Amino acid sequence: MVSVTREVWSMPRGGRECSIADALSVVGERWSLLAMREILLGVRRFDLIVHATGASRDILTSRLRKLVERGVLERVQYEQSPPRYEYVPTEAGRALGPILLSLMEWGDRYVRQGSAPTAFACECGSELHPVTVCGECGAPVSAEARVTRLGAVR
Amino acid sequence: MVSVTREVWSMPRGGRECSIADALSVVGERWSLLAMREILLGVRRFDLIVHATGASRDILTSRLRKLVERGVLERVQYEQSPPRYEYVPTEAGRALGPILLSLMEWGDRYVRQGSAPTAFACECGSELHPVTVCGECGAPVSAEARVTRLGAVR
Repeated sequence: MVSVTREVWSMPRGGRECSIADALSVVGERWSLLAMREILLGVRRFDLIVHATGASRDILTSRLRKLVERGVLERVQYEQSPPRYEYVPTEAGRALGPILLSLMEWGDRYVRQGSAPTAFACECGSELHPVTVCGECGAPVSAEARVTRLGAVR
Repeated sequence: MVSVTREVWSMPRGGRECSIADALSVVGERWSLLAMREILLGVRRFDLIVHATGASRDILTSRLRKLVERGVLERVQYEQSPPRYEYVPTEAGRALGPILLSLMEWGDRYVRQGSAPTAFACECGSELHPVTVCGECGAPVSAEARVTRLGAVR
């Protein structure tokens, strides 16, 4: 453990420079991810997102504003009078879909008591159980698989 | 959008019953996931996790306690006198590894300015770019792919 210890003490104040931390600065909050869940399911109007998530209106307003500012959502007017808006995922927002499905699988397996409340089907016809694999060779990525850190950890 | 609207208004107060919400009740918080990142990298002692994440000691204490209570970590004594403890991931904790790598990939691609600060290699030798696929047929799961909801959404 000496090398890990040395590596950690050599880090700057504020911790490891890391894209997980960057990602969480945008979506690392319960209500942001639950709002994204709804929007990716097609629930795109503010009142509906409030109801489907159980978020307070104030919290949801601030979370949606941040997701728009950070390029994960677009706020699009769909009615002129009265003016009404809906939230549409950008490419970055759509790319959260598989991560949310993986979180759902984790929740089904390790958190939930009883059967899964929602299931999805893949185009192949089977019930979807997402697996994370290497994009190159297709081998499953697991904590057991040897994944080697290449980059400098600053 | 009528069907989506009806479906949402028929939901109970508090929102959709959902394993994503369940998962986020355990790990839906920035410092919990950053602590898990460190522990999965092998950084398992409290002071080191504080330094490597930049979390306050109070917040980290409460997050680690919750992760132990919910079965994601075990607190294991590794020294008798003085008594010292380290945090070891359970199966549920290890299963968060691929999700964190997917979040890292998302952060690299959509949040970070400049090059990725950390890279991992797969056992196949190539730099790891994780992809989420159907466990049955291996097709990538994307927001574009037609994933059909099967289950009752209560």
